[in-house]
Amino acid sequence: MTSNLRVTIWNEFRHEREMKEVAEIYPDGIHNTLAKVLGEAGGMEVRTATLDEPEHGLPADVLDSTDVLLWWGHAAHDEVKDEVVARVQQRVLDGMGLIVLHSGHFSKIFRRLMGTSCDLKWRETNDHERLWVVAPGHPITEGLGEYIDIAHEEMYGEHFDIPAPDTLVLVSWFSGGEIFRSGCCFNRGRGKIFYFRPGHETLPTYHHTQVQRVIINATRWAAPTPGAARVFGNVKALEPGH
Amino acid sequence: MTSNLRVTIWNEFRHEREMKEVAEIYPDGIHNTLAKVLGEAGGMEVRTATLDEPEHGLPADVLDSTDVLLWWGHAAHDEVKDEVVARVQQRVLDGMGLIVLHSGHFSKIFRRLMGTSCDLKWRETNDHERLWVVAPGHPITEGLGEYIDIAHEEMYGEHFDIPAPDTLVLVSWFSGGEIFRSGCCFNRGRGKIFYFRPGHETLPTYHHTQVQRVIINATRWAAPTPGAARVFGNVKALEPGH
Amino acid sequence: MTSNLRVTIWNEFRHEREMKEVAEIYPDGIHNTLAKVLGEAGGMEVRTATLDEPEHGLPADVLDSTDVLLWWGHAAHDEVKDEVVARVQQRVLDGMGLIVLHSGHFSKIFRRLMGTSCDLKWRETNDHERLWVVAPGHPITEGLGEYIDIAHEEMYGEHFDIPAPDTLVLVSWFSGGEIFRSGCCFNRGRGKIFYFRPGHETLPTYHHTQVQRVIINATRWAAPTPGAARVFGNVKALEPGH
Amino acid sequence: MTSNLRVTIWNEFRHEREMKEVAEIYPDGIHNTLAKVLGEAGGMEVRTATLDEPEHGLPADVLDSTDVLLWWGHAAHDEVKDEVVARVQQRVLDGMGLIVLHSGHFSKIFRRLMGTSCDLKWRETNDHERLWVVAPGHPITEGLGEYIDIAHEEMYGEHFDIPAPDTLVLVSWFSGGEIFRSGCCFNRGRGKIFYFRPGHETLPTYHHTQVQRVIINATRWAAPTPGAARVFGNVKALEPGH
Repeated sequence: MTSNLRVTIWNEFRHEREMKEVAEIYPDGIHNTLAKVLGEAGGMEVRTATLDEPEHGLPADVLDSTDVLLWWGHAAHDEVKDEVVARVQQRVLDGMGLIVLHSGHFSKIFRRLMGTSCDLKWRETNDHERLWVVAPGHPITEGLGEYIDIAHEEMYGEHFDIPAPDTLVLVSWFSGGEIFRSGCCFNRGRGKIFYFRPGHETLPTYHHTQVQRVIINATRWAAPTPGAARVFGNVKALEPGH
Repeated sequence: MTSNLRVTIWNEFRHEREMKEVAEIYPDGIHNTLAKVLGEAGGMEVRTATLDEPEHGLPADVLDSTDVLLWWGHAAHDEVKDEVVARVQQRVLDGMGLIVLHSGHFSKIFRRLMGTSCDLKWRETNDHERLWVVAPGHPITEGLGEYIDIAHEEMYGEHFDIPAPDTLVLVSWFSGGEIFRSGCCFNRGRGKIFYFRPGHETLPTYHHTQVQRVIINATRWAAPTPGAARVFGNVKALEPGH
Repeated sequence: MTSNLRVTIWNEFRHEREMKEVAEIYPDGIHNTLAKVLGEAGGMEVRTATLDEPEHGLPADVLDSTDVLLWWGHAAHDEVKDEVVARVQQRVLDGMGLIVLHSGHFSKIFRRLMGTSCDLKWRETNDHERLWVVAPGHPITEGLGEYIDIAHEEMYGEHFDIPAPDTLVLVSWFSGGEIFRSGCCFNRGRGKIFYFRPGHETLPTYHHTQVQRVIINATRWAAPTPGAARVFGNVKALEPGH
Repeated sequence: MTSNLRVTIWNEFRHEREMKEVAEIYPDGIHNTLAKVLGEAGGMEVRTATLDEPEHGLPADVLDSTDVLLWWGHAAHDEVKDEVVARVQQRVLDGMGLIVLHSGHFSKIFRRLMGTSCDLKWRETNDHERLWVVAPGHPITEGLGEYIDIAHEEMYGEHFDIPAPDTLVLVSWFSGGEIFRSGCCFNRGRGKIFYFRPGHETLPTYHHTQVQRVIINATRWAAPTPGAARVFGNVKALEPGH
């Protein structure tokens, strides 16, 4: 019997409470929209956590019992406490999966795991976005066609200051003239990380079924592997006789 | 309900019939030893195919109903017909997984998929081999410790003339002074390929439980993803209005 | 004193002789246009070779004295003899650089070195192409801005059936809605390979100074390194006492 | 005319002043040993900087006029001020090359650029180390044979907790039974980073001519490319008519 994947969805959860146009699209917050999507996908136990909860909803016991963490943040990256960031980083290196969404590119945790600025270009004028699959055998593309069309989205453009992804899965085309590496897999320590670009808060992107499909696939892909132990420190040599 | 993975194990199957020392270790052939291992692992339907069968046991209908193909060959690579090689290559690009074992590095199918000579160094004096995990979160390392020890194996040494693997999972240490990239993942088309070094025919390597563990893990990892369609050829532009 | 880089530019050279519209753009053939560009860049001795010469202009002594080979072909890939292809492949593995241009994606030599179909989408309706730099520190981007604009080009779209590049340098945006991995570095054996997308024969792309800049940069980048020897075959173990 | 590469060699420079056995091998410090090596290699202007100088010898004007920075540290990583680390990181993202030597794996700057713990195994019993070239066409291998032998070195073993290198160039074999990814290239922002393993302070490793060869090659390889500008922030769309 396979046990359920334990998923925690973290959301800054400020825009939804402060901006009417966002609240109309995500009345219970982006986290609860995604929680419903993942819950219905099957095989997952889903919790949520938000910035303004104690320890941002991510005390050690929550992280220790999380297999995959999703992260959406935008306006308050600086308010996330460094000790929580350090804790999340350690959990990723120990094997927890991490899905970073949209403006989460500028979150402390993503920048710390990447080692780069994670800066990019942007334009808030509702471009047409088309996300092309460039790694068609990758598990994150399960059930997709050759691309995903999103009629209106914020544009993110290159240069995106990240390390070259271990696997590049999706590249976006924007009607205004830009491209962007929109679906990027990284391995850090024993953890799997997926950055997924779409999801501007004033647009109904997380109600798009193919966007949901990618998030479901990525969450499953990022599940920890009960794999090889990592051993560090001072060690002895191979015994003679071997 | 998840359907079974359809696995075909291909073996040259000459050494076992011609060399007593090999027959004693693998009385029914390497393919049947591995078939038993994978069959008992669960979730797989396992068939075998060998060089001296018609079409080497790999007619179109067998390949078309194979999700993952394992390949062991050594002394008769040249006898494998080019049309069968082309068929296997096409199936890999279409999504079939391929596990290439030991001296299969010099098989026509592996060389064709790599585009390089796949040459290497070797020494048949039973070195001690230790395979170190360098990608500890990778699914192929599930259930392993930090390394696998094999008391006696043929040595393969660098330089191994392959493209840089998409993921390097295992690196071997040999008592005689060499190292080797022994567990290498490649993506080609929609297919996943894993090269796994150990398995000299005069040694009981495929009876080693951790070697078996890697082969089981790799077979599962290489399962096709029902992923994004690959569309080629002449196409129209995006409709105006989008 | 640094000696000159010995460059050979190979061109199918049929369109220019058979199609008036092509001849008007490249009256002496694409190869001579590029030869002039590279010759004026400095530090290179440039020769040309074409399909209809004996051995396609690539006998062993020419290849043996070539540091970097450029390749443009389109309509007659099948007429290139297999023994010449094998010779070029061997030279690449031994360290010769190879720059594959535009429709050369379907050449025998590129397909053989890649191990995949190298198929793609295309549309001959003069899209606007914008090539974005995604690896801004790479030597091939020297002297470029953040992108290259080409007012009219044939479209090539994903999926492009190649192995994931060792380094992805340029990604194209097309006005018709597609993206394409247009500047791709591969290492095979000791050789460096660069695929560069633009260059449809009916358009003046190779007169574009920034396209020329990329070809100059790539030719220099692909120069052989007098690097570590590659040793293969049966070897002895490390001497005791070490 | 090519201008000289401006190189700065940073050294913690404590062991050489405090430990007689180290002072005997490097009487003027590791930095001055390496400065002599690079100075004699030609084409470089070499400066040094050490921990106990003001701002660790790395004020803004020094970094701003440095093309490639080498880094050796061990016992006092924590004493390096965070603002200096941040300045070095920014310079790397802007294009400065960085060569991290031996125990520098645990330096703040390397850990920050990698985003991982950079932890590893070690044993201070003078193993025999043999560094095998696995990327024989890479510029860093220029002039090497198929491996480098070091009769006595400290052992570093896997797992080495780093992101998968963009290019893996050297893998070490140790007589005690371990392997290690000893020569690793990374690209971060516009900067090139090379981690090179050997160099324990109580051993004469930096007097080894082939170790010196690698450091010379790596320094040249890491030179900044006057490449594509990186543009970030809010931008307009492509003008209509294009």
